[in-house]
Amino acid sequence: MAKDTVTDKNEKETRLLVCEFLRLFYNNGWVTGTGGGICASLATDQFLIAPTGVHKERVFPDDLFVVNSQNGEILRAPKKQSLRLSECAPIFCEIIRRRSAGAVLHSHALSTVLASDISDEKDSLSIAGLEMLKGIANENNKSRHCVPIVSNTMYERELCAAIEGALTDAAYARSYCILVRDHGAYIWGKDIWEAKRHAEVYHFLFEAVRARHGLKRS
Amino acid sequence: MAKDTVTDKNEKETRLLVCEFLRLFYNNGWVTGTGGGICASLATDQFLIAPTGVHKERVFPDDLFVVNSQNGEILRAPKKQSLRLSECAPIFCEIIRRRSAGAVLHSHALSTVLASDISDEKDSLSIAGLEMLKGIANENNKSRHCVPIVSNTMYERELCAAIEGALTDAAYARSYCILVRDHGAYIWGKDIWEAKRHAEVYHFLFEAVRARHGLKRS
Amino acid sequence: MAKDTVTDKNEKETRLLVCEFLRLFYNNGWVTGTGGGICASLATDQFLIAPTGVHKERVFPDDLFVVNSQNGEILRAPKKQSLRLSECAPIFCEIIRRRSAGAVLHSHALSTVLASDISDEKDSLSIAGLEMLKGIANENNKSRHCVPIVSNTMYERELCAAIEGALTDAAYARSYCILVRDHGAYIWGKDIWEAKRHAEVYHFLFEAVRARHGLKRS
Amino acid sequence: MAKDTVTDKNEKETRLLVCEFLRLFYNNGWVTGTGGGICASLATDQFLIAPTGVHKERVFPDDLFVVNSQNGEILRAPKKQSLRLSECAPIFCEIIRRRSAGAVLHSHALSTVLASDISDEKDSLSIAGLEMLKGIANENNKSRHCVPIVSNTMYERELCAAIEGALTDAAYARSYCILVRDHGAYIWGKDIWEAKRHAEVYHFLFEAVRARHGLKRS
Repeated sequence: MAKDTVTDKNEKETRLLVCEFLRLFYNNGWVTGTGGGICASLATDQFLIAPTGVHKERVFPDDLFVVNSQNGEILRAPKKQSLRLSECAPIFCEIIRRRSAGAVLHSHALSTVLASDISDEKDSLSIAGLEMLKGIANENNKSRHCVPIVSNTMYERELCAAIEGALTDAAYARSYCILVRDHGAYIWGKDIWEAKRHAEVYHFLFEAVRARHGLKRS
Repeated sequence: MAKDTVTDKNEKETRLLVCEFLRLFYNNGWVTGTGGGICASLATDQFLIAPTGVHKERVFPDDLFVVNSQNGEILRAPKKQSLRLSECAPIFCEIIRRRSAGAVLHSHALSTVLASDISDEKDSLSIAGLEMLKGIANENNKSRHCVPIVSNTMYERELCAAIEGALTDAAYARSYCILVRDHGAYIWGKDIWEAKRHAEVYHFLFEAVRARHGLKRS
Repeated sequence: MAKDTVTDKNEKETRLLVCEFLRLFYNNGWVTGTGGGICASLATDQFLIAPTGVHKERVFPDDLFVVNSQNGEILRAPKKQSLRLSECAPIFCEIIRRRSAGAVLHSHALSTVLASDISDEKDSLSIAGLEMLKGIANENNKSRHCVPIVSNTMYERELCAAIEGALTDAAYARSYCILVRDHGAYIWGKDIWEAKRHAEVYHFLFEAVRARHGLKRS
Repeated sequence: MAKDTVTDKNEKETRLLVCEFLRLFYNNGWVTGTGGGICASLATDQFLIAPTGVHKERVFPDDLFVVNSQNGEILRAPKKQSLRLSECAPIFCEIIRRRSAGAVLHSHALSTVLASDISDEKDSLSIAGLEMLKGIANENNKSRHCVPIVSNTMYERELCAAIEGALTDAAYARSYCILVRDHGAYIWGKDIWEAKRHAEVYHFLFEAVRARHGLKRS
């Protein structure tokens, strides 16, 4: 959850954690090929956001931007002039504002692409019958959990309207994930630790949905 | 196997080993998303049990509870007040008492979920024709090995009755594993090393059953 | 991109990076069994090329050859007399000259073999409907991206004519990859970092094509 | 290749390498659950052999036996009294004598089990159309490569007769691998490095055969 003031110690730790998680997510195949992204809260309305177009497992603490999540303004940029802010920034800010997220991961994992492919519904993926659903905040293992799917667009910024629609649709109020067809997923939590847990849980669920889809087709 | 007295050296080593194995099992995809759990014997009736709701690959030696396996009582709790005992504790104690287990792993691996899905029988999975069966204590490679499957419940504690039923059913006397449908598996051994071996063997067997199921469906 | 002069510092760093990437690619399963190869630019027309027939994850900076990419001549050989220049060298030089490549990876990943198997066309693989296409220089996510496929030959040097044909065919002008049927792929970029990004992107795309092929066949 | 005399330095290095490779093979899923094994030449007729029933990724240099490969006699045993010689020892010795092998790996990888399952022939697996075949000594990429399959037995020692039959059958003269149905594979080379290369090549080939079998069944 966002903290009210940033201390140097907090900021240093959060910067390190963001970079550690990018390495972990890279090893999971979630942010390869310079794809994907991450943001995490420093204080109310202040977020660290990774740069775009860089090898995500090689991002260092000083490479992160500090952005005002209310208006998207860059508060502090890295010294390395070549770095540009993630194109996910407007989407990250939308999720932060609408859902009080403390951290958001943008995953390019193959399992997120296949999850959209497999769904019987065009606009959502419905998941049920898995204990792992309990890993989602306030969810239980008897629920039918609905994850919205939005269509991909030419540019990341063009996704904003559909993302906003999904975030405000009551049908998806329990979801901490939005799937983008042919593209990936946005996954968030109240803080960076819950975002990590949700990322692991949703990727597990997508793998499970895919495997069960294969079993059904016999 | 449970030792009669706990020395400081023994306890320190066992705490380290439990944490090392959690990191190993996390990397195997068995305890991601804060799921899964582990317990290991310190002395007769005294077990180390991991906390619930934490990232399992980041559990440290001082984070473990010491529990009396006869009555489930917490003998020593970690100093970190936020930690709560694993919800698997009653099930761990049941397995320890009924099977003289020295360590138990609770796995959330996808292969354990699919093993239950694939089984022709509702209440058990039968495995045969694999050398790896020899990796199970007292089992050989010509056996038909029966692993019980119990239905999942809303809360972990509600599993106890079905788990007890499986543990006392003569049909499953040779099994060191109980599958929980849509959920995972409990796997144990006489000590932490046998539990690790059994965990690797059963996960291999579940992967093999799944792959052969795929071959059969052509 | 090729630099005009080689400094000792540049050369040391590039040699280290080539070896680091070979270890990374080995862990990805792209260069196992001593297969695969890599080259990277030191300066205009001067390239580091890995030796042949060695365990690629155990190549050290001093094991690399320096080759003139215009004529394939060895400018400097490693001191270790047993090392022989990669048989890919003529193909690497062809790609460098025709495409101004600054680095080329030769991958033996299973996904590259299956990508050729799966293609509906004999001479190319067409990929569309994936955001990850944006990871290819100058490509976007609405394109239909065409990767040429050439037939395998008994010896690597016999591939040169077909590789040259693919490199000069306008149909494949946007591709940074050539698939060799039953064999693997050549993937390049303007420098070693773009080559790494392209390698990750193309391997992802081949995995995606394979997975979607499986979904279609239900 | 076997050396004529053992120096302390040679022996120390080979012991370290055997343990390093066991860790590598464990991470590949080839020797999990205490399964699998390895031997490597110290000098003519003198081989290091790993112990049985231990977690293979935790074998240390002092845990290895020295065995006379001509008669199977233990020349030097580890100090740790609990260690017993691998049950593969007679098979290792048979392969060493018949094929002048300098190192042998016994793999329990799932891909080796499925390779036997998939074969159209009961007694052999035929592999063709893959560049990776070149990774097998004296083999080329246009060959049809025949790997013998023997039936599994209750005890490892009972495999010897069938293994001997496969080793002396002219149909398999080019193979550096014997598949054991429902069990695994023995893979060797003239020295430990060729054995490692062959191990990586054969496991790749088995994965490829499996994947192509899946594609064919559409």
